[in-house]
Amino acid sequence: MRGAVLYGPRDVRFEERDVPRITKPTDAILRISAACVCGSDLWPYRGIQPIAQPTPMGHEYCGIVEEVGSAVTSVKPGQFVIGSFFASDNTCPHCRFDYQSSCQQRELVSGAQAPQLRVPLADGTLVATSATPSNDLLPSLLTLSDVMGTGWFAADAANVKPGFTVLAVGDGAVGLLGVLSAQQMGAKRIIAMSRNESRQKLAREFGATDIVTERGEEGVARIKELTNGIGADSVLECVGTQESMMQAISSTRPGGHVGYVGVPHGVELDGQELFLAHVHLHGGPAPVRRYLPDLIDLVWNKKINPGKVFDLTLPLDQVAEGYRAMDERRAIKTLLRP
Amino acid sequence: MRGAVLYGPRDVRFEERDVPRITKPTDAILRISAACVCGSDLWPYRGIQPIAQPTPMGHEYCGIVEEVGSAVTSVKPGQFVIGSFFASDNTCPHCRFDYQSSCQQRELVSGAQAPQLRVPLADGTLVATSATPSNDLLPSLLTLSDVMGTGWFAADAANVKPGFTVLAVGDGAVGLLGVLSAQQMGAKRIIAMSRNESRQKLAREFGATDIVTERGEEGVARIKELTNGIGADSVLECVGTQESMMQAISSTRPGGHVGYVGVPHGVELDGQELFLAHVHLHGGPAPVRRYLPDLIDLVWNKKINPGKVFDLTLPLDQVAEGYRAMDERRAIKTLLRP
Repeated sequence: MRGAVLYGPRDVRFEERDVPRITKPTDAILRISAACVCGSDLWPYRGIQPIAQPTPMGHEYCGIVEEVGSAVTSVKPGQFVIGSFFASDNTCPHCRFDYQSSCQQRELVSGAQAPQLRVPLADGTLVATSATPSNDLLPSLLTLSDVMGTGWFAADAANVKPGFTVLAVGDGAVGLLGVLSAQQMGAKRIIAMSRNESRQKLAREFGATDIVTERGEEGVARIKELTNGIGADSVLECVGTQESMMQAISSTRPGGHVGYVGVPHGVELDGQELFLAHVHLHGGPAPVRRYLPDLIDLVWNKKINPGKVFDLTLPLDQVAEGYRAMDERRAIKTLLRP
Repeated sequence: MRGAVLYGPRDVRFEERDVPRITKPTDAILRISAACVCGSDLWPYRGIQPIAQPTPMGHEYCGIVEEVGSAVTSVKPGQFVIGSFFASDNTCPHCRFDYQSSCQQRELVSGAQAPQLRVPLADGTLVATSATPSNDLLPSLLTLSDVMGTGWFAADAANVKPGFTVLAVGDGAVGLLGVLSAQQMGAKRIIAMSRNESRQKLAREFGATDIVTERGEEGVARIKELTNGIGADSVLECVGTQESMMQAISSTRPGGHVGYVGVPHGVELDGQELFLAHVHLHGGPAPVRRYLPDLIDLVWNKKINPGKVFDLTLPLDQVAEGYRAMDERRAIKTLLRP
């Protein structure tokens, strides 16, 4: 089969790869219905996070089970399934506390930008839908594998409650879906930081009530101005840079919550500054598995349409253009059809 | 009157100071019943936190109201009162969210190691007891002004719940009272880190079930060993150094909570490390005012005896020895009688 392989900075190739096979009795093999490019794929694509060797890409996926290992009992061939980007056994102590992305047996799923995929720990990782979805549901179901689950975790970690004032830092797909999540959780006011017209528009569709174009200290001053000098109750940090992290912390009211899901690159937090900010800080790799059943219901019943973040759909063999479009910010997120 | 003044590293003098007077209509003047030396006083005492000029010391206090400004309505002369080390109006937005130590009008109380003290924002800061307490209650009531409220905030910020496994990092008075707080909140297992026999003993009296003497990586390994490799649910960081902070974060299970109240000195948190630790982090100057009414009840009804942390009582004119004993770790905490 042919799939995406990253060779180095801005060098993604669509080339022959081994067909995945069951290697452990807990594995499943999926026929991919839809895959996509993740914002976090851009870190190695841009060379900021170097790779040691040619690397099969893709960790967001949904599809039909083709084969399962002898120990798999919860899914079976023919079912449509979605799983998290981190495989988890869903039975270890961390999983029982609902932190499946810190599972004691966790394994990063990789190679999903391909027609077939091996998923480890299938019983703990995959959730089957009640039936095979129609094509129009595929984009939204695909988002639950990572990007929507991550936006949801950002809002959850930021303790969004009905009536709250929420700020989303970052207008990538995660930030935009953080806005949608906050709206679903009953936020009264949702401020999105964006300078890009199409992203501002989507933020508003997802529930943003205010758009702020300023950044850094000016951005913080604007948030303070919009909140009577108090700061936001909940802030979603969806970028992962020093600037975005400090913007998030400084925009939060004392006692408020920062949920951070942007993978930190070069972020250093000064202890005393954090102490005086008086905020709650929580984040990390989103425990997407925790949210899958509820989010599948919301998509299935057409309560939410997170698939709107895909503003570019390409056949899998044009995966390189999918990366380029996101790298150049011509596209928010690229969906790939095998 | 004569009170304590810090001139420089290890130079505390007991000398003539101006008698405090009402300077604003919201002020109150107290006749101090008992004061003490705070662990945080040791930072400037040791020269780690330099001072610009001779500084009147002391921010933990309780006493009898002598005089109030014209705008004060909630306390009156003759009443016994306790207040937080941060004066707060208790009406601003941050106060209404119960973060009085981030009050928009906050002022650090200072000069309490003296016979008399001016307390700003008296209505918002001071809480009166129902009657004048007997002398045996004074030490415990005094702790509510800072050290006990701070230990309680550490446990609260660390989300201690009934049945939890809790770790206290730091065997100073705050750490020990964090143990007492966790015990009051229903923790099932409380691990205290200490190498000092008298502090270990007090930790056990306050509810510690396990003592760990290892530190750093060995300390973390020991905590993991004691918790079946999982980590603690709630960790109270009561020191404020890089080592203690990392020990706290690394000893917490994914999804667990770190409550940090040790004023950070030279602490830098690596964003990626924190991200992967998957913990909740909350701390800052304790909103002691929030807890005063409930903690006064617990002390008044003899449910808790936090005053046990005072293992040295001196007349106020021996304040310099009070600092020395704590600096040399001969005393956990010094109570000063004017």
